[in-house]
Parts: sequence; C-alpha cells; structure tokens
Amino acid sequence: MPSDLRHLVPLEHRITADQRRARNKHAGAVLWFTGLPGSGKSTLALGLEQRLFDLGAQAYSLDGDNIRRGLNADLGFSPQDRHENIRRIGETAALFADAGLIVITAFISPYREDRAMARAAAGQAFYEIHIKASIEVCERRDPKGHYALARAGKLADFTGVSAPYEAPETPALVVETDRLSVEESLARLIEFARTKLLNV
Amino acid sequence: MPSDLRHLVPLEHRITADQRRARNKHAGAVLWFTGLPGSGKSTLALGLEQRLFDLGAQAYSLDGDNIRRGLNADLGFSPQDRHENIRRIGETAALFADAGLIVITAFISPYREDRAMARAAAGQAFYEIHIKASIEVCERRDPKGHYALARAGKLADFTGVSAPYEAPETPALVVETDRLSVEESLARLIEFARTKLLNV
Repeated sequence: MPSDLRHLVPLEHRITADQRRARNKHAGAVLWFTGLPGSGKSTLALGLEQRLFDLGAQAYSLDGDNIRRGLNADLGFSPQDRHENIRRIGETAALFADAGLIVITAFISPYREDRAMARAAAGQAFYEIHIKASIEVCERRDPKGHYALARAGKLADFTGVSAPYEAPETPALVVETDRLSVEESLARLIEFARTKLLNV
Repeated sequence: MPSDLRHLVPLEHRITADQRRARNKHAGAVLWFTGLPGSGKSTLALGLEQRLFDLGAQAYSLDGDNIRRGLNADLGFSPQDRHENIRRIGETAALFADAGLIVITAFISPYREDRAMARAAAGQAFYEIHIKASIEVCERRDPKGHYALARAGKLADFTGVSAPYEAPETPALVVETDRLSVEESLARLIEFARTKLLNV
C-alpha cells in the first residue's frame, strides 16, 4: 500500500559494477584520449567505438560533436570555460563508466590539472591515453584548418601554437600516430582494451 | 601511413541508433520522472532500473545522488541554478539514450519549460512520466523530513509548499503512487517499457 514507499527505500539499490561487468563481459571504463589538435583523437575514438561494438562491447564516444552542441553549449573558450568544459566531460564520462560502458573521450584536454580532475571523477575506471604526434605532423594534417588560422593570428590560445600542451607523465598507453597507420593505431587500442577491460 | 588519418576521417562514423537497438533488443530512451517531493520517484527509478536490468536491458538511473555530487556539484538552489541543473540532466540523459541505454531520471523538475528543454534534447526518445501523489500523501511520507522543514519556514522555495509544481499536461504515463503499491507501480512502469521500448 502507499505507505510502504517510505519503508522500501532502503531495499532498492543500484546495480553494482560487478553485475554490470558480468552482464556486459567487460568493465565499465573511461578511455581518456588526450593529444594535440590533429593528433587523431576523434578519428581513433570513433574507430575504437566501432571495433569495440563489433566485439560485443557497450561503447560510446564523447567528443566535440555531441558535447559542445548540448551539455556544454553554454560554454565558450575562456580559460575558465575550458576548465569547466573538461570538468563536465570528466563527470559525464564517470557516469557512463558507472553505467558499465566503455566511454572514449576525444578532447585535447591540454592541462594535467584538468585531466587529474577527470581521473578523480572516474577513479579506478580511468585510463589516460596519449594520442601522440609531433606538432609538425599535426600541423601538416591540420584537418580543420585551425593551425593555419592560429599561425595567421586569427585563432587565440590555440594548443600547440599559442597555448601549451602538457603531455601526460604516466599515461596508461601512448599511441604514436605519426609512426603508426590508423589501422595500426586501432590495433594498439583494441589490444589495450582487450587486456584491461574485456572478459574480466 | 600517418597522412591517411586526415583522409580517413569521413570513413569513421558513429554506431547508429538502429545498430544499438538491434544489439540491446530495446530502444535507447529517456524515462523522465517528474513529481512532488515524496511522490516516489527515486524509489521507483532504482526499482525500475533493477527490473529492466533483470530483463536483460541496459538501464541506468540519474538522480540527486549521482548528479548533485558530481556533474552538478557546482550548482546551488537559486532559480537559475535549478534551471541549469535540469538542463544538464536533460542533455546528459540524451547522451545516454543516444548510447542505447534506457536512462531513468528522478528529479522533481517542477517547471514545464525545463522539462520541454529536456524533451528537446532527447527528441523522440523522450517519455515524460508523472509520478503522482497528492501533496497530503507526500507530506505524510516526508522521507527526508523536508516538508516539515519547509512548513517550519526553514527550507525556502520548497516545491509543493512554497514553490509551484507544474504537472505535466500530456504525460506518456501517470503512475499514481497514492493509489498503487510500489510493486503495482513498478508493474505499470515495466509494462510501459515493454510496450514502448523492448523488443522493438
């Protein structure tokens, strides 16, 4: 009867991480990509999402495309807003990991302090992955034409040109996209996910 | 080789909603609970998450417990912050639905305008569910002692006492928790989910 609602509260509890892992046959995790503009983060995130899905995993990518137009549509590019941008992405990624998914985040996230905050949100489920290419290679690729704009002084605080990139000190994985093809890069990432997350 | 990164960008794409639905055997969706404090939203959200999980579905609840301590930890209870609270929850829920999950949100969300915003974020995947009980029954339950505080004037802008609750005009489902037991309420919710989302 109605009054049992109150008393039942303690009986309802969340699905545990172990239960979700057993169901999905992999751990929930945040694969946090970081790297210079043009290093290949978005390409590899979407590629990895596809491969993981094909392997039967629950996988999802967070990137500028689905974050900046929605959750973080109110944020600009001031230092404070960039910080808040990464904070929210870190917290959202942690929720996805808690829900049992392998979530891949594809953001430059140039500051160690911000990445440490994202790590704190997800705890043990967090894996920092450096998508690494030299600035020269990234600038030659310049997929969005942003390097050219930054060099022309038309894009302020551009990471690698007019703003710093703080490389990870102890990443869980480094993928050198200036030495590896996309296929080879994806192979490294899949091998990492298999070892760390799948069938656990 | 490295330079293929640029050219491969268009080849990588997201897993489609249809692919995720086929995999999970249910549609991604936002089950947006709204109702007075003490109407039973959190209890039913966690209960429904469990039942859906037991049925093999990918289900996850967003509630004050996992939202206010993380993603929205920077927000207070001013009208502006309450609005932003619901906006972010709506956008986050939309991401979960896009990832193929059935996400259940358990927030008072008293304003139609805010709920309309959440609906806009998730589109067709959004289902508004009114967890309905009379103010008298909710106040008698008072699971967190908030009604007592509000009546004593110690809690400002408390929905149902000193702030309005705008009931949904055309909810997808109404669950009258002052007439139904928890079990009966969950049965209605499961039936709704089966009909609308499962095996589609």
